[in-house]
Amino acid sequence: MNVIRLYNKPECPFCWKVRLAIRELGLDAEIIDYQTPSRQAEWQTFSPGKTVPVLRHGDLAIYESDVILEYLQEITGRLLPESLADRIQARLVHQYSDTRIGAALREVIFEKRDKTPAQWDTERIAAGTEAFNRALPFLAQQLGEQDFFAGRHSLPECALTARFGLAEAYGVEIPEEFANLRAWFERMKARPSFALTAPPAVPLSR
Amino acid sequence: MNVIRLYNKPECPFCWKVRLAIRELGLDAEIIDYQTPSRQAEWQTFSPGKTVPVLRHGDLAIYESDVILEYLQEITGRLLPESLADRIQARLVHQYSDTRIGAALREVIFEKRDKTPAQWDTERIAAGTEAFNRALPFLAQQLGEQDFFAGRHSLPECALTARFGLAEAYGVEIPEEFANLRAWFERMKARPSFALTAPPAVPLSR
Repeated sequence: MNVIRLYNKPECPFCWKVRLAIRELGLDAEIIDYQTPSRQAEWQTFSPGKTVPVLRHGDLAIYESDVILEYLQEITGRLLPESLADRIQARLVHQYSDTRIGAALREVIFEKRDKTPAQWDTERIAAGTEAFNRALPFLAQQLGEQDFFAGRHSLPECALTARFGLAEAYGVEIPEEFANLRAWFERMKARPSFALTAPPAVPLSR
Repeated sequence: MNVIRLYNKPECPFCWKVRLAIRELGLDAEIIDYQTPSRQAEWQTFSPGKTVPVLRHGDLAIYESDVILEYLQEITGRLLPESLADRIQARLVHQYSDTRIGAALREVIFEKRDKTPAQWDTERIAAGTEAFNRALPFLAQQLGEQDFFAGRHSLPECALTARFGLAEAYGVEIPEEFANLRAWFERMKARPSFALTAPPAVPLSR
């Protein structure tokens, strides 16, 4: 089998999600920084929005993170849970992470990134943090007392670990009232895949 | 097998996409208007954003259109093409329709909807139309001279038929230079599924 190549931006949550999936599946993959000048043509040709992640495997070029995850499921059969109900639940929570959680955190991250604290628009940061907090009760209810969102480590774990990891790095904590989400995140950080895939520029804790 | 129930907004492109998939698969489904007062609790309980489409089947409640399509594939095995490469391509073009094509048309539709022509912001409409036109070369290149985007009628046909159908209803035409896309759309409109699923408020041609 040809080697999997992932064109990657370390601090991109969609890339981190894919890195976690690759690592949890134990796949061999070449992780290539998207800015490497000699490698840009290999991925930019295929990505209509010139975005990463892009995964190349043999003749395939896959330029959407959720399609990359469906592909990893297709070739391994181990990324999604066994039962149909769990597979649907895994996809739904994954989507929720990409949309609701992602949109809230984007406000905080885009405001704090590349600015000094004195330049921050604190109202924008507060609004993003509040949107993040408002999105959590649904997740807490979906998780309940389970170890994982859908039977076992799957799409939600890859997606939300990356989101919560970036949130923490940018000073957004999961409030204490969501004890099950906090405990879940601690369990995810304790897995070897976390330190092996976390972006170097993002501190693992503050 | 329990009957499939689709909670539906006729003019929503995500709902139309799902209706096309259901009809093309020949599935029995109860299509329920999302505004029906006596039926709202049946779907609003499950949809965290209170959005449609929501598909209910047995104990499952699925509130994201792309997860609904993956579910229809899971239970029928006939919504996605046979080959792995085609299945990935089908998902990629489907995503492109939901994001790039959808975002462009939203500008036009939201501006024209519920307003008289005298109230229209013509600059916003022009910008949306231009974004739509800029998104088409990639699609035209993906389609080439094929009958379908990925081997056979699949996700891209469901997604793009709904988008192009709404575009046409709102006065946005596929420019003549994209002859293959125009011919593809005419073929899609000629299928029985089109008239059977088109929203009644949207004229089939202008």
